[in-house]
Amino acid sequence: MKISDISVYVCCPDRNFVTVKITTDEGLYGLGDGTLNGRELAVASYLENHVAPCLIGKDARNIEDIWQYLYKGAYWRKGPVTMTAIGAIDMALWDLFGKYTGQPVYQLLGGKSRKGVKVYAHANGASIDEVIEQAAGFIKEGYKAVRLQCSIPEMDGTYGILGDKKDYYKMQGDRHLPPEQPWSTRKYLNFIPSLFKKAREVLGWDVELVHDVHSRLTPIEAAKLCKALEPYDLLFLEDVMPSENQAEFAGLRPHSTTPLAIGETYNSIWDAKTLIETNSIDYIRCAVSHFGGITPLRRLADFASLYHVKTSPHGAPDLSPIALMAHLHFNYWVPNFGIQEFVGFGTDKLNSVFDYDIYVEDGLMKTSDKPGLGVDFDFSSVEQYPYKRSYLPVSRLEDGTLSDW
Amino acid sequence: MKISDISVYVCCPDRNFVTVKITTDEGLYGLGDGTLNGRELAVASYLENHVAPCLIGKDARNIEDIWQYLYKGAYWRKGPVTMTAIGAIDMALWDLFGKYTGQPVYQLLGGKSRKGVKVYAHANGASIDEVIEQAAGFIKEGYKAVRLQCSIPEMDGTYGILGDKKDYYKMQGDRHLPPEQPWSTRKYLNFIPSLFKKAREVLGWDVELVHDVHSRLTPIEAAKLCKALEPYDLLFLEDVMPSENQAEFAGLRPHSTTPLAIGETYNSIWDAKTLIETNSIDYIRCAVSHFGGITPLRRLADFASLYHVKTSPHGAPDLSPIALMAHLHFNYWVPNFGIQEFVGFGTDKLNSVFDYDIYVEDGLMKTSDKPGLGVDFDFSSVEQYPYKRSYLPVSRLEDGTLSDW
Amino acid sequence: MKISDISVYVCCPDRNFVTVKITTDEGLYGLGDGTLNGRELAVASYLENHVAPCLIGKDARNIEDIWQYLYKGAYWRKGPVTMTAIGAIDMALWDLFGKYTGQPVYQLLGGKSRKGVKVYAHANGASIDEVIEQAAGFIKEGYKAVRLQCSIPEMDGTYGILGDKKDYYKMQGDRHLPPEQPWSTRKYLNFIPSLFKKAREVLGWDVELVHDVHSRLTPIEAAKLCKALEPYDLLFLEDVMPSENQAEFAGLRPHSTTPLAIGETYNSIWDAKTLIETNSIDYIRCAVSHFGGITPLRRLADFASLYHVKTSPHGAPDLSPIALMAHLHFNYWVPNFGIQEFVGFGTDKLNSVFDYDIYVEDGLMKTSDKPGLGVDFDFSSVEQYPYKRSYLPVSRLEDGTLSDW
Amino acid sequence: MKISDISVYVCCPDRNFVTVKITTDEGLYGLGDGTLNGRELAVASYLENHVAPCLIGKDARNIEDIWQYLYKGAYWRKGPVTMTAIGAIDMALWDLFGKYTGQPVYQLLGGKSRKGVKVYAHANGASIDEVIEQAAGFIKEGYKAVRLQCSIPEMDGTYGILGDKKDYYKMQGDRHLPPEQPWSTRKYLNFIPSLFKKAREVLGWDVELVHDVHSRLTPIEAAKLCKALEPYDLLFLEDVMPSENQAEFAGLRPHSTTPLAIGETYNSIWDAKTLIETNSIDYIRCAVSHFGGITPLRRLADFASLYHVKTSPHGAPDLSPIALMAHLHFNYWVPNFGIQEFVGFGTDKLNSVFDYDIYVEDGLMKTSDKPGLGVDFDFSSVEQYPYKRSYLPVSRLEDGTLSDW
Repeated sequence: MKISDISVYVCCPDRNFVTVKITTDEGLYGLGDGTLNGRELAVASYLENHVAPCLIGKDARNIEDIWQYLYKGAYWRKGPVTMTAIGAIDMALWDLFGKYTGQPVYQLLGGKSRKGVKVYAHANGASIDEVIEQAAGFIKEGYKAVRLQCSIPEMDGTYGILGDKKDYYKMQGDRHLPPEQPWSTRKYLNFIPSLFKKAREVLGWDVELVHDVHSRLTPIEAAKLCKALEPYDLLFLEDVMPSENQAEFAGLRPHSTTPLAIGETYNSIWDAKTLIETNSIDYIRCAVSHFGGITPLRRLADFASLYHVKTSPHGAPDLSPIALMAHLHFNYWVPNFGIQEFVGFGTDKLNSVFDYDIYVEDGLMKTSDKPGLGVDFDFSSVEQYPYKRSYLPVSRLEDGTLSDW
Repeated sequence: MKISDISVYVCCPDRNFVTVKITTDEGLYGLGDGTLNGRELAVASYLENHVAPCLIGKDARNIEDIWQYLYKGAYWRKGPVTMTAIGAIDMALWDLFGKYTGQPVYQLLGGKSRKGVKVYAHANGASIDEVIEQAAGFIKEGYKAVRLQCSIPEMDGTYGILGDKKDYYKMQGDRHLPPEQPWSTRKYLNFIPSLFKKAREVLGWDVELVHDVHSRLTPIEAAKLCKALEPYDLLFLEDVMPSENQAEFAGLRPHSTTPLAIGETYNSIWDAKTLIETNSIDYIRCAVSHFGGITPLRRLADFASLYHVKTSPHGAPDLSPIALMAHLHFNYWVPNFGIQEFVGFGTDKLNSVFDYDIYVEDGLMKTSDKPGLGVDFDFSSVEQYPYKRSYLPVSRLEDGTLSDW
Repeated sequence: MKISDISVYVCCPDRNFVTVKITTDEGLYGLGDGTLNGRELAVASYLENHVAPCLIGKDARNIEDIWQYLYKGAYWRKGPVTMTAIGAIDMALWDLFGKYTGQPVYQLLGGKSRKGVKVYAHANGASIDEVIEQAAGFIKEGYKAVRLQCSIPEMDGTYGILGDKKDYYKMQGDRHLPPEQPWSTRKYLNFIPSLFKKAREVLGWDVELVHDVHSRLTPIEAAKLCKALEPYDLLFLEDVMPSENQAEFAGLRPHSTTPLAIGETYNSIWDAKTLIETNSIDYIRCAVSHFGGITPLRRLADFASLYHVKTSPHGAPDLSPIALMAHLHFNYWVPNFGIQEFVGFGTDKLNSVFDYDIYVEDGLMKTSDKPGLGVDFDFSSVEQYPYKRSYLPVSRLEDGTLSDW
Repeated sequence: MKISDISVYVCCPDRNFVTVKITTDEGLYGLGDGTLNGRELAVASYLENHVAPCLIGKDARNIEDIWQYLYKGAYWRKGPVTMTAIGAIDMALWDLFGKYTGQPVYQLLGGKSRKGVKVYAHANGASIDEVIEQAAGFIKEGYKAVRLQCSIPEMDGTYGILGDKKDYYKMQGDRHLPPEQPWSTRKYLNFIPSLFKKAREVLGWDVELVHDVHSRLTPIEAAKLCKALEPYDLLFLEDVMPSENQAEFAGLRPHSTTPLAIGETYNSIWDAKTLIETNSIDYIRCAVSHFGGITPLRRLADFASLYHVKTSPHGAPDLSPIALMAHLHFNYWVPNFGIQEFVGFGTDKLNSVFDYDIYVEDGLMKTSDKPGLGVDFDFSSVEQYPYKRSYLPVSRLEDGTLSDW
């Protein structure tokens, strides 16, 4: 089964997505998600101009050799653009091989290890009460875990808060240039423990709570927050500081028992290896697309299992439903699964473009047993919903200093 | 002095090059090299579609803030495409600031630390005699250091050997798809010491000798080679093994005193930090373009100096003369300079497109004192010499196993 | 632009200052601060007798080579006298190069990274109420951060408390011999937490608070204090213990999340390297004069940035306005800036001798955009305000044991 | 016994020396050596202007408290100027206390541990034959150990070679500015093993051989040299590389069994602690004057003994006979004594100014049993032989790069 064509589709059904389609001489095709938020066209170019030509004629079933060919065989490795491109190809090959064998991908990975995939929902709000109200709604719907994010008083535009947007999936359209948002660690640290104090008072202690710091703290500030939130017993605290200097994370450990999660921006195992082998984290959050595909994600999970680190794949709207489905299959299988982030079922536009099948039941995400990844794509969407340039915000301290994203 | 326009030019005057031009409202412009061998169009897209729009209107003199904006301010960091794009912008801003202040860039970095920039030439050949003859030629011209690469008997297409090409700069055109080259560590290790044995016999012990392994060995094979070449007292052995697992390099040290050099594929200080702080290498070979510009390269060099690691920037034909000139200025200044790789003065086509001024005198490269980087570009070359897709080769063991590049 | 003269000026406009003037054959001159509190004349001698003669005739633009010449080229390196002398020369050369190019020094370093330079003021008092009243005054003036120091009951002469002096800048004249001050860790540790408890009650939690221990504790005492002050959430605790044994600091970390700052007595990166690379501190407080100038301070800051350590330059009255201005320029640029210590605008005498231009607006220090460092000096002050010998106090335990400064 | 006066004398009986005289109210005086080669006047100023006034009236017998007062009691610590000043005071106080008790200093330190002090002589020459001839002469005189230094062919002015000077003590007068000497590691490493090969052939294997590298190598070059000289079984190789990064030395160990010595530029235990505790060196060469006196040198030796590191004090002509005598007393006592460097008995002028009594017998240096250090000084020499500014050379690589001293 030889690869006869590789095409790349960029569309914006409320959000920008990069979709790769690999077609074989047997007529089957597989789909992969190559979306890289704010850098979409660079990945599309990488795939079309530099990756696609090399793969034509290769046997699509040789998933391993193709992955090594694109990673180890290349002079240039690592980094978000390269690895997202490789990830899209790998995902499409797994989708293809599923269709080729008539098997859902989780089956090819080793079969289901669980009934369904535990997810955590996002409760965001302009005030503590609003956040808790939302969270209570999710709990009522059966969710066992919720992420809580709240606007910080006197700090405009806290990232991850929807503001007057109704839906994550609609946030992107406005940002033709990166908005600049102020950051004050003092205001943040003075405020955020009260959110969790109230949350535990109102929501009780059965629900798992999560919080995302978006990498905005220094190590000692991170330690402070971990300690301040320790009484509220989080499932994990996410992205508590930037992680280029992986060894730094070990310093957080003695200060608290707050579990730590990280990894959504990682592109290879080398971004996480030290973090894991020093037992500095508890959940590894790499995404199948940005991490280079199912092939390396499996290796990462296996390595993490040696240190009792669980997986918790990224699940923001910067992943298309193709990556979402890949995560679902992966999660069904992976023995050291932790929890899946889940921001909701997407907009009507989005769901008119991607055809997939998921539902959440008693806090567990499930799907039907279609071969491959179980997702299809409307190729005409490229014309209907053309790409709109869009950026994530940039963060500056109150004195104007460029701060970590 | 505000940025009013950023344009990207891709051309192929024998080799593909990506050139960035930043124009300001005061009419000055600066040039940067964004060439990423075999991945050129992805960088061009990254720059045009994702970087350029954000920078319009910014003060071009705020080189640091712009660098931090593109690196720390972005959700996606690191990797070859991202960092080469940032490198091109940073180089252009330094060029601009040099023109703005009327200073050559080396003066802005701290002034000249030496009379000229010591370079090493490339002697390549199909046989030991051919290599040594070439090397002798370079020595006669005044070069103090030469890299020796030789075809390995019964192993086709050893990378870095020119074959029937007359010039590096003409190699690229033929590779519309990545050629696959066989690799046999045994054949290589059996042969290469004899090259250096003969070289010392013929060329004597005053000349510095260099050899590049192109990352094809495992740690224990690398240790073997280091030890086998130790009697020939190399200036350094380059890229002796892949370096993602930086800690592995420490294991090479007790086996020999062969100095080690690495870094041409690195894109950030995080790719090198452990290698340097464990004193595992002696020369760091990062290129101004692929490493994200002059701003981070200076930080790398300063960091390396704490460990007595010297700089030896990459100097292959995959850098345009803009990066070459940036290296020259950087090298004039950097206190812990080691040596510059130099593959020759380029082809006529190349030199008709880029206007710059270098010469080698008694083994030292020099330039005149023009403001900025001292290089100009013929913007019409884009039409005259359009981009041609081109790849580096892929390496496979003799049984077909995909091997490290 | 060759150095034609180097002259040294020692004067005492309320405080002793050592000023270096480097004049060039083009008529431009640059100024550097070589003040070393209590050791002024040794630096003056070092500069006049040992440094100046070597530099005459050198190109003043070769800032790097001159720095290396004085540091690496010398048999004797490091230490306060040597490095302050080098620092004065380096500062003067940057001032010169700024004037030569018409650029303010921050522009030559990479441009402004922020709107202004956040400072912390000093609130000192004989009682908790007095300290807090002063701090409240600073907050009212717009300061966002204040250092709190208070006399310890039943312990005479706690260093850093002004006593009946009205101004730091007038403290020096009385100390023709080093006063000996008693020290009792028990009295100190028993008392100081109550200062911060009250401060938070009165001043609230928006202001950043700082405290300086002046290196008087042992490691376990330091850990106690860090822990005792943790509830009051300091911006940092300064000089919590002597630091010659850098590795000792790592032991403080698990005990608290109180951020640590240190470095005002450091003279080279080797005094701080282990502290930084073990993530044992959060702010590095080296002064441009005592650390050997802008050239090495930049290297230190860049090194520190790898470990998320921020800069917070020393700002006591033992720095002349030349160093203050050098810090201001440095702070405008340095990406990992934290906060600048600021003890006030100096006395009339001081300001009649040094001509410079700073103001504090909404807690941020700013200056106008003059070329170079933007400071001038009245050379006649040497006769008008001659040097007066003056010492810092010496510290003894209550039983008479000589204790750390 | 109170200190009533402290005076400082700078004279140049062929070499510059700084001599401190501490007089007490009982009429006794003690002498200390405060010579800091090329930085003499800064130490003199430090002593006269900053140290002397504080000590008047103190009990001269409180050697420990005075040392702590000057070191721990001071804000500024460490570095060559500070510690040499403290060293001069400490030496003079030991001399005084010896005279006060009527005891030679070695007796006060714990008594003689040996018959005499083994020394090594210096054989220097323009050619291998000249060096070996000189060495043979020393051996004939009874010396058991010799240091061999030889001019490197085609490299002008190799440091430590006397050239046409007849005596070390006369070298200094010519250097009113620092001469610049070229350095080529290749030329040096290509040549120096042949010196030791020949030396062993001619001189045999009973004599101890020493070589001094003057810190001119990088770590990997140092490892090469250690390995190349291993067959010639040196007593030690001295100053094989700069030592600010003490941890680097550990990397030399696996490459050879060549013993390493270092320390002549060290000013405090912190310069050597890591080197010693990692067993990276075998001999510690700190000088009593530059290391802050007998008081800290004893602590260093005691610490070193834990790691089987032996002492080998610096013995160049940049120490006055006062320091030489202090070393002699120290060496008589110190249990973990190794060997003393000895460059000869000085010039007539020198010996007319300093009155002391040493002789070498069967390779062991000895002295008579006078109280104190057993050295006196002609105070009128200051007028007779006034100070002459003089510098050590500066080292540059052949391309002009400033290199380590």
